[in-house]
Amino acid sequence: MYSANDIYKKKTIKSAKLFEKSKKFHVNGVSHNIRFFEPYPFVTKSAKGKYLVDVDGNKYTDYWMGHWSLILGHAAPQVSNFVRKQLQSCWMHGTVNDITVSFSEIIQKAVPVAEKIRYVSTGTEATMYAVRIARAITGRKIIAKIDGGWHGYTTDLLKSVNWPFEEPESAGIGDQSQIVSLPYNDLGKSIHILDSVKSDLAGIIVEPFLGGGGCIPGTKEYLRGLEEFAHKNGALFLLDEIVTGFRFSFGCIYNTMNLDPDIVTLGKIVGGGFPIGVICGKEEIMKVVDTSTRTRADRSYVGGGTFSANPVTMTAGKSILEYLKKNSSPVYKKIGKLGNQARRGLAKAFDGKVEVTGIGSLFMPHFLANGITEIKNASDASRCDTELLHRYHFEMIARDDIFFLPGKLGAISSVHRESDVKDLIEASNRFSAMIN
Amino acid sequence: MYSANDIYKKKTIKSAKLFEKSKKFHVNGVSHNIRFFEPYPFVTKSAKGKYLVDVDGNKYTDYWMGHWSLILGHAAPQVSNFVRKQLQSCWMHGTVNDITVSFSEIIQKAVPVAEKIRYVSTGTEATMYAVRIARAITGRKIIAKIDGGWHGYTTDLLKSVNWPFEEPESAGIGDQSQIVSLPYNDLGKSIHILDSVKSDLAGIIVEPFLGGGGCIPGTKEYLRGLEEFAHKNGALFLLDEIVTGFRFSFGCIYNTMNLDPDIVTLGKIVGGGFPIGVICGKEEIMKVVDTSTRTRADRSYVGGGTFSANPVTMTAGKSILEYLKKNSSPVYKKIGKLGNQARRGLAKAFDGKVEVTGIGSLFMPHFLANGITEIKNASDASRCDTELLHRYHFEMIARDDIFFLPGKLGAISSVHRESDVKDLIEASNRFSAMIN
Repeated sequence: MYSANDIYKKKTIKSAKLFEKSKKFHVNGVSHNIRFFEPYPFVTKSAKGKYLVDVDGNKYTDYWMGHWSLILGHAAPQVSNFVRKQLQSCWMHGTVNDITVSFSEIIQKAVPVAEKIRYVSTGTEATMYAVRIARAITGRKIIAKIDGGWHGYTTDLLKSVNWPFEEPESAGIGDQSQIVSLPYNDLGKSIHILDSVKSDLAGIIVEPFLGGGGCIPGTKEYLRGLEEFAHKNGALFLLDEIVTGFRFSFGCIYNTMNLDPDIVTLGKIVGGGFPIGVICGKEEIMKVVDTSTRTRADRSYVGGGTFSANPVTMTAGKSILEYLKKNSSPVYKKIGKLGNQARRGLAKAFDGKVEVTGIGSLFMPHFLANGITEIKNASDASRCDTELLHRYHFEMIARDDIFFLPGKLGAISSVHRESDVKDLIEASNRFSAMIN
Repeated sequence: MYSANDIYKKKTIKSAKLFEKSKKFHVNGVSHNIRFFEPYPFVTKSAKGKYLVDVDGNKYTDYWMGHWSLILGHAAPQVSNFVRKQLQSCWMHGTVNDITVSFSEIIQKAVPVAEKIRYVSTGTEATMYAVRIARAITGRKIIAKIDGGWHGYTTDLLKSVNWPFEEPESAGIGDQSQIVSLPYNDLGKSIHILDSVKSDLAGIIVEPFLGGGGCIPGTKEYLRGLEEFAHKNGALFLLDEIVTGFRFSFGCIYNTMNLDPDIVTLGKIVGGGFPIGVICGKEEIMKVVDTSTRTRADRSYVGGGTFSANPVTMTAGKSILEYLKKNSSPVYKKIGKLGNQARRGLAKAFDGKVEVTGIGSLFMPHFLANGITEIKNASDASRCDTELLHRYHFEMIARDDIFFLPGKLGAISSVHRESDVKDLIEASNRFSAMIN
């Protein structure tokens, strides 16, 4: 039997050449660290529906779905029909436009904490501003985040992202002592850490569902406990719903859990696949941003950026939310059902060797190891056999034309079908047999 | 005679209503602080060529040009023809794509320092990473920037942007003691300040032409002096060419000045109006970013982000650079000539009362005041009569349908004509007569 490596190399000859060329121009050949995998990532030529097509003509059923931003699949006509039209009347104004107003109207109804909204161009910018607002309002410095919590690349939150969490994430990011990190879903230990910094605690930022940290739902008790601690101690409760906003229902996780965040950050799905970050906050909180009523020392400098609220992103966002609103029940039911089938099927395929985490349309198998029997947080996930997970994903890329970004969770979109999940489970059965 | 305010209100009735609505959703009604002006900004409906069209149907000749990012005017077919096609084969891959490679090939030829490139989605992200790289390589902390130098909203550079430069830019941005600030074009004073921090100096970041700080060219002597100081003292020389890249010629200012930067950041024009930031650096420098050869503590964590190198931005960038390359001589000659005419015409219109700064297609009148007779840096610009400048711009919006973002420099694009510049000068003559 040929190795996955051999098969992959044989079918990605043009990719190999082009990636060699890419390495001449780009550090490590990529424009995003996580997009690299061994021996080299294939080079995408086009994408449509559930498929990524590479330059050699291989067609992969895609569960990466543009960093999980494409809930209707690639090149969704529900979005492109409107964007194409918008292109004719411009893609950049640099001024206030009317599309933004109608887009915000939809968001505010679905995400009531969005009493005031500011658009930026990336999730990294959104969380940077959320943290800045928390520090400005409280006059305090410390931000608590979660071990394995991922909020983009802002220097203000670049700590305890990757295992081992106590090691620095990078050189050149200066003193990170103003960030403390908490173990997810462990309220007792988290409160203990928070207690030690509470007099200088500006805010707690948390994903209600750990995305990059391992596809792990937060418990209601845990999230409520953090919220209660924040509010009791004069700190802000910041929910990062960049991955989860409009992923499980037409709105956010916080609505369904009756949480009371001060700020919610959005991104990915709400931009329809175009560059976006959104800061949604209570009026009371967001007024610290207002340049018309505040002096520099009193306000939080939340800008926007050249591309903020550009008409293409606003149009894409508006069109996808309008579509999801009208089709909310069939879309979320369908992808949730497929998610369930995937979780059950994978658990069965690996017969006790993996725990499959996730909810709704998101799922991820963890190859249990090192005595880990349950995945409650990013530390559990990181101590599983992540090498085997990478191998599993790579084998499917090579042998089955199924694409997960190796090591990352899978996201089902509305264009996936039951037969895709069946194919995925069959491929997993084959891999399971191979490693037994 | 009706006041500009009356005229503006009368012709922007729908904008007024819509902006009231926008205020319900957005802090101060806008998605970017600088897009607000009194009594309220008009709301843009569409844009084409040299025009911005508002919801009341007013057609403004636009010199703001999307934060100066649109060198071919709004909705340029040289870009949209390719973007429209790209939309059909997807706007988001989340993987390596082939368009990036050919785009980088063009950039590298025009900007030789780009031995290695990384794409991000905004200028803010690009400068954040440039600073992170400088600190990682040198193991030092201090970054020197320019009074009035603008590099986006990253916490790492949010100091000494707006006059008065010694006041904090924002609450909630923590200790800014690792940023020192220098007076532009004053090499003696700058070296004096740099000398005091040289043992911990990681890098100097500077725009070779102050954009937001007042449309002020840096002198060759000054820029070379900073470069020499940086390199003599083991620090990096970082050139921010987000405004100036491909603005004056097919390449950067640094090429024409024979500077030797370690990193150049690009944005705006190179994205054709789509969200982009680019970090271009020498191989020797950029290797600190490589995850395949470096451990976390040794590398600079330069990510990318969900939208980095997305195929729409890459296509837009590639198509505009290909067009500019082929048409470099007529485009830059034309807009440079119109820029000269604008500068000369405005100087004449205000007959010694203003100094008009700028080069090539960028220009800005400064209403001399407070004993200022020459504009060499942002402090000179800020001590001019900036209120009068705002009034001048607003009067033209109201009376002449000419749009500058009040207080900001003007950018001529290839779709502007001599008759536009004539109109601008005539409007300026009328304003000049009014204030005499």
